[in-house]
Amino acid sequence: MKHYIYADNAATTKLDGCAFEAMKPFLLDEYGNASQPYSFARRSRKALAEAREIVASCIGASPEEIFFTSGGTESDNWAIKGTAYADSSKRQIITSNIEHHAILNACSTIERQGYHVTYIRSDHNGIVSAGALEAAMTEPTGLVSVMMVNNEIGTIEPICELANVAHRHGALFHTDAVQAVGHIKVDVEELGVDMLSASAHKFNGPKGVGFLYIRKGNQIHSLNDGGAQEYGFRAGTENVASIVGMAVALKKNCEMLDEYTRKISRIENLLLASLHQRNCRFIRNGGGEVATGIISLSFPGADGEAVLHRLDLMGIAISTGAACDSVNTQISHVLQAIGVEESVAKGTIRISIGKYNSDEDVIVIADALQKVLER
Amino acid sequence: MKHYIYADNAATTKLDGCAFEAMKPFLLDEYGNASQPYSFARRSRKALAEAREIVASCIGASPEEIFFTSGGTESDNWAIKGTAYADSSKRQIITSNIEHHAILNACSTIERQGYHVTYIRSDHNGIVSAGALEAAMTEPTGLVSVMMVNNEIGTIEPICELANVAHRHGALFHTDAVQAVGHIKVDVEELGVDMLSASAHKFNGPKGVGFLYIRKGNQIHSLNDGGAQEYGFRAGTENVASIVGMAVALKKNCEMLDEYTRKISRIENLLLASLHQRNCRFIRNGGGEVATGIISLSFPGADGEAVLHRLDLMGIAISTGAACDSVNTQISHVLQAIGVEESVAKGTIRISIGKYNSDEDVIVIADALQKVLER
Repeated sequence: MKHYIYADNAATTKLDGCAFEAMKPFLLDEYGNASQPYSFARRSRKALAEAREIVASCIGASPEEIFFTSGGTESDNWAIKGTAYADSSKRQIITSNIEHHAILNACSTIERQGYHVTYIRSDHNGIVSAGALEAAMTEPTGLVSVMMVNNEIGTIEPICELANVAHRHGALFHTDAVQAVGHIKVDVEELGVDMLSASAHKFNGPKGVGFLYIRKGNQIHSLNDGGAQEYGFRAGTENVASIVGMAVALKKNCEMLDEYTRKISRIENLLLASLHQRNCRFIRNGGGEVATGIISLSFPGADGEAVLHRLDLMGIAISTGAACDSVNTQISHVLQAIGVEESVAKGTIRISIGKYNSDEDVIVIADALQKVLER
Repeated sequence: MKHYIYADNAATTKLDGCAFEAMKPFLLDEYGNASQPYSFARRSRKALAEAREIVASCIGASPEEIFFTSGGTESDNWAIKGTAYADSSKRQIITSNIEHHAILNACSTIERQGYHVTYIRSDHNGIVSAGALEAAMTEPTGLVSVMMVNNEIGTIEPICELANVAHRHGALFHTDAVQAVGHIKVDVEELGVDMLSASAHKFNGPKGVGFLYIRKGNQIHSLNDGGAQEYGFRAGTENVASIVGMAVALKKNCEMLDEYTRKISRIENLLLASLHQRNCRFIRNGGGEVATGIISLSFPGADGEAVLHRLDLMGIAISTGAACDSVNTQISHVLQAIGVEESVAKGTIRISIGKYNSDEDVIVIADALQKVLER
């Protein structure tokens, strides 16, 4: 395969080489079931405990507050449904209209089961304000869930303020931090969140693994019932290799956070400057504070899907519409939520830069976009 | 580490080397998100489709009836809860008292949510009879779930007959086939089941992946809501590497089924003969048809946990109590269910033989058991 430029890092990322090397022994020889007591499983058990400590320390949590899951979707579903089922006296949940489908669809399920879900609206920058949340809070609000970084436009939400509002009204606060963890600073104490979801493959870890942070003392029901794994709260034989890979990838990204952010920021600025230089007219979606590397661009008059396919033919992978699946090609709910006109929304692509991208990558992308948009 | 004899294959198995080799490209370079439309994700998409075909063909299903999950526990939870939530007019579920905790605890959750669960009793051999099921069926029975092979004593349940009973009464039939798939012949058409759970790491695939077979036309609710993956029924970025590994491992075990079964059967017989030779007095638990390789032995007067730890010191890994976790050390519900007296149940161990075991392994185990039991 010829050199391919991968600029869809918000959809998934390349596994870090260190993470793969750390996984290998647990895929090959150290295959003991971490829940068994004999010495053959000791290294699995130890690796699991160490991974839990690493992950916890990367987000300012305690190890016993980290629950390994199969990924961000499971973590989000668990937070929403597990909280709802645990205290059915508080039957209102508040979320926003720019959440990932893992949150939105978990909320739909809860609604069908008789809970009331309020979807507060973001502003035109994609920001969910504390004021909007304050206005929506009612007495039976049990949970507020607002994402930390939007996966389509990169907006960083004011989680700390939002969590404060929730707590003042006696509700729990969850954040889907799938696009944040390993990319921007995340500290559960500073943020004041009660639950936080993350997915390894978004931060150069393996696919099929993630975690849910659950603050000590927070009572939520389990979703995967069965064995006594994960302190009895998430059953299923521990996926030790992937958990170890996730911890190694996260630790590296957190340790290198400033360096990676500087690099990605430089590449991002180079992309935008190169597009300007080439007289490509675009609107960047999302405002306020935006996570480095997630770049939503609308080219008025263009067809985002056609742009994606033409770039693909030129050896470039970018995204259009929603982040994690492309089965639904309708106009993104996020672009609708921030008030992008349908004609403009149709001409939108998302370029997402990761730590393995280079300056050259975005020069090639800018050249390609110029060609594609000129036609 | 000195040579260690691993005889706990019902807890987890060594990943097949072929499976690891098949996974590697998807862990390293072919990391594209299988739900993205560009060519960089083509190999992931193709591998996913091929894996689905392989898995389907191994159990006599169609590819669109295979839904990849994070493992047996998720599959079991999905079958139980997804069926209950899909048709709340049928509020009775029937299962047995010898199921895995993934089924039993999923049923407890459903009970707390207002469903009625009937636990039919197995006989002293560990067999759940069609007669017992027939007697328990009522009009509002929506689902019957009985495991295919018991994880502690190896009993093979009369799934075909049980499914017939369920269907005659208009109920769906699910089987937890975690200990069956890749070990005995499993054909969903011959069995007549509507749903079937499996877990890769029980048949020399990787941990953290499994599948649920759902017969075409069967309406069940999803548990992991979110993106449109798995035909819109199980959200979450596809864990391509592990899914590929699972398919390769399953295909190999199914192709080699007769050979592996002969080998494991020979080793099992050698173990039992060697114990007799050494005058070790034991009772083998479970009767009727028993899956090759799962050997539950009670040594009256012994302490199973002490035996486990002494064998461990001698470099041998076996199990006691429940299969998948050892946090609960109370007497196994399966041994209670088949009427093993408490004093005898306490002296019970499970030796589970896999395709990587040898004749020598069980001679060493027999010698070790003789020493341990003599003391």
